[in-house]
Amino acid sequence: MAIHDFLPPRRLLLGPGPSQVHPRVLRALSAPLVGHLDPAFLGLMNDIQSLLRIPFQTVNRFTIAISGTGSAGMEASIINFVEPGDAVLVGINGVFGSRLAAVIERCGGKAVPVEAPWGESIDPNMVEQALRRSGPVKALALVHAETSTGVLQPLDDIATLARQHDTLLLVDAVTSLGGLPVEVDRVGIDICYSATQKCLSCPPGLAPFTMSDRALSVVMRRRFPCQSWYLDMGLVADYWTEGSRTYHHTAPVSMLYALREALRLVAEEGLPARFARHRLNSDALIAGLLELGLTPLARSGQRLPMLNCVTVPERIPEAEVRARLLTQYGIEIGGGLGPLKGKVWRIGLMGESSTESHVLRLLNALEELFVQGGWLTTPGVALGAAMRVYSRIAH
Amino acid sequence: MAIHDFLPPRRLLLGPGPSQVHPRVLRALSAPLVGHLDPAFLGLMNDIQSLLRIPFQTVNRFTIAISGTGSAGMEASIINFVEPGDAVLVGINGVFGSRLAAVIERCGGKAVPVEAPWGESIDPNMVEQALRRSGPVKALALVHAETSTGVLQPLDDIATLARQHDTLLLVDAVTSLGGLPVEVDRVGIDICYSATQKCLSCPPGLAPFTMSDRALSVVMRRRFPCQSWYLDMGLVADYWTEGSRTYHHTAPVSMLYALREALRLVAEEGLPARFARHRLNSDALIAGLLELGLTPLARSGQRLPMLNCVTVPERIPEAEVRARLLTQYGIEIGGGLGPLKGKVWRIGLMGESSTESHVLRLLNALEELFVQGGWLTTPGVALGAAMRVYSRIAH
Repeated sequence: MAIHDFLPPRRLLLGPGPSQVHPRVLRALSAPLVGHLDPAFLGLMNDIQSLLRIPFQTVNRFTIAISGTGSAGMEASIINFVEPGDAVLVGINGVFGSRLAAVIERCGGKAVPVEAPWGESIDPNMVEQALRRSGPVKALALVHAETSTGVLQPLDDIATLARQHDTLLLVDAVTSLGGLPVEVDRVGIDICYSATQKCLSCPPGLAPFTMSDRALSVVMRRRFPCQSWYLDMGLVADYWTEGSRTYHHTAPVSMLYALREALRLVAEEGLPARFARHRLNSDALIAGLLELGLTPLARSGQRLPMLNCVTVPERIPEAEVRARLLTQYGIEIGGGLGPLKGKVWRIGLMGESSTESHVLRLLNALEELFVQGGWLTTPGVALGAAMRVYSRIAH
Repeated sequence: MAIHDFLPPRRLLLGPGPSQVHPRVLRALSAPLVGHLDPAFLGLMNDIQSLLRIPFQTVNRFTIAISGTGSAGMEASIINFVEPGDAVLVGINGVFGSRLAAVIERCGGKAVPVEAPWGESIDPNMVEQALRRSGPVKALALVHAETSTGVLQPLDDIATLARQHDTLLLVDAVTSLGGLPVEVDRVGIDICYSATQKCLSCPPGLAPFTMSDRALSVVMRRRFPCQSWYLDMGLVADYWTEGSRTYHHTAPVSMLYALREALRLVAEEGLPARFARHRLNSDALIAGLLELGLTPLARSGQRLPMLNCVTVPERIPEAEVRARLLTQYGIEIGGGLGPLKGKVWRIGLMGESSTESHVLRLLNALEELFVQGGWLTTPGVALGAAMRVYSRIAH
C-alpha cells in the first residue's frame, strides 16, 4: 500500500472544474479549526450568507452553502419542493438537464421535458407550448450554463412564463455563478444552486443555494416530509438562522473557511470587472482556437465565457492530444460527455483560471502539439489572434 | 458587511467533534488542486480505499469516502438498502439512534425501535424479542458509539442475531472509528459509516463508508431506484471502481487530500497503540473529573474512551462554566443534547485531541473555575488523580 507523502503534480486547471484556487483560499483552508457552534464560526456563517448574496444578486434571507457538491445542491433544489405526483417542466439540452429530470423522477415527481439539441438553448416558445399542454406544474427547471455543451440559457422570457403560470422558477447556476450575471431577484428566480469549484474558484465540496420567500413557503407547506433528512432545508434552516442555530449536522468547517475567502475575492474584484474578465479571456481563446480549426459548438450570443466547448476536427486524435496536454504541459482540459464524447473539448476559463497568461499558455501548447501532429503549418497564428483581441481592449 | 480577514481564535477542541487536526493534515488541505479525473487523483482515491480498510478492519472492496458529513453517511447507509415498506430494527438510546429511525421513516421504511434509557446500551435480549415479534426485517441498525451519551454498544451478540435471522447488520461508527476497534469483518458488520472529524482527526465533510458483498448484492437487487441520485451507491461505485471511473459528481478534492493524510497518521501510529492511547487518556480524565464531583453517565465497561459524558452537579451552572472555558481558556467541550441538556458535559478526547497535555490543561482550567465558583476547596486533586493514572502506566 502506498503510504508515501502525496505531492500533487502541478496542473493548470482549464477543464470543466475544479478551477484554479487562489493561494489566499488555500491558506484559509489550512487554518486551525474551531467548533461548528463556536461564536466565531457562527459569525463566519453570517459572513458567508452576506457574501453569497453578492454573486446571486439577491436579498434572499435563505442564502446558504449546502454541505455537499453541486450535485447535492441540485438534489436539495428538487426534493425540498417536489412531492410525489408533482410535475416539473425541465429543459433538457445536455447532461445536467437530464440529471435534473432523473432527480425529479427519483423523488416521485414527473419530469415534463422540453428538449433542444445539444449545443442549443431551450426555446421559450417551446416552454410556453409545453406549459399549455402539461397543465399545472410545480416548477420550471432550467440549466443556466450547460457545462456539457457550453450553452448559455437566456432566462428572462422563461421567467415571465413562470410568473404568468404561477409556478416556481428553478435555475442551475453551477457553472455561471461568479462568471456571468445570475440575477436572482431581477429575473425572479425562486430556487438557485451552484457549486464552489467553478467560477467561485474554491475547492469542490459545497453548493451555494438561495431561495425566495415564495419558495420557502412551499417548503413549509409540504404535505409529506422531505425524503432526505440530510438535505431537508426546513431543518438546515434552523442551523443557518441567527438566534436559532440548532445543531443539524456538523458543518464542513474548513471548506466554509475557504468559501468565505473565495467570496471575498469575488467581492473585492466586483461583479462587473469579473464578468468582463471572463468575457475577454473567452473571446481571446476562441479567436485563437478558430485559427486551429476548432469551432464553438454553440452559436454566437449563446456561448458561455467560462466554459468554451469547441468541436475538434476528426483528423485530430482528441483524447491523445488531451492526454499529452496533461502529461507534457500540465494542462487539464475536458473532453466531451455523452453524445459529444470524442467530438469536443470543453475548456474552462473559470474564476482564477480565466487569465490572459493561461489562455496564451494553452494556445501555445496546442500550437506545439498541432505542429508536431502535422495539423498546423504556421505556428503563431493562434497566439497572434488571441493577442489581437487583448490589444484591441488595451488600446 | 464583514470583509476582513478571518482569523480563527485558538481553540483546543475537546467537544464531540470536530477534534484537533494534525498540522500535516492542514498542510495536505492546502495543496494545489488537481482534477477529479486526473490520473494522480485516481491514485489518491485508491490509497484512501486501502487506508480506510485499516480502521474498518475489513477487506471489503466497497470502502470509500462519501462526499458529505457523517449524517450523509447515515443517510446513504439507509436509503441504499431500505425500500418502501421494509422494516428495520433500530436501537434507540440517544440522539443518533433516533436520527437513524427518522431517516428510515423518511425513505418509506418502517423503524422498529428497541429502546434503552439514555446512558445505557441496547440489550441483545430485547433485540431478540423484538425480532421474534416483528417478523422479517431488512436490517438491524445500531449506534456503536452514541455521541449524545458516551455509551459503547457491544456488537457481538447482536451480530449473531443478525446472522441467525439472515438480516443485514448496519452500524454507526461515527465516533468510534479510529479510537475503538470497529471490527467490520470479524463481527460481521454489513454496512458501516463514520465521519472524518472524530477519531480520524480530519476536518468534517466526508463520511467513510464500507459495505460487505452481501450488502452490495442487496443494492444491486433493488426493486426501485434509490430515492437519492447524489447518494446512490450503485452510481457512486462506478467512480470509485478502478477501470470504470465514470464521472458521477465532482469529488471534494481538497478534503480527500486531507483524509488521505489523516489516515496515514492512523496507519503510522497503528491501531493497538491508538486504542490504548484513547483508553489511557480517558481513564486519566475520568479520574480527575471524579475528584471534581463529575460522574460518568454510562456504567463502567460501557463507557466510550473518546467521548466522556459526565453528569454535572446541579449546583454548578454548566452553561456558564462551559462558556468561560471557551472564552477564557480557549477550550471547547460539549453540552448535553435533548433530555440531557443542562445536565451533562460531553468531553471529547478524539484522535489528536486525546493527549496527556490536553487532559491536564482541561483539568487545570476546570480546577481554577471550580475554585473561583466555590465548588472546590482543594485545588490539585483532579490533576493529581489524573497524574496518578499516567504514572501507573509509566512505571
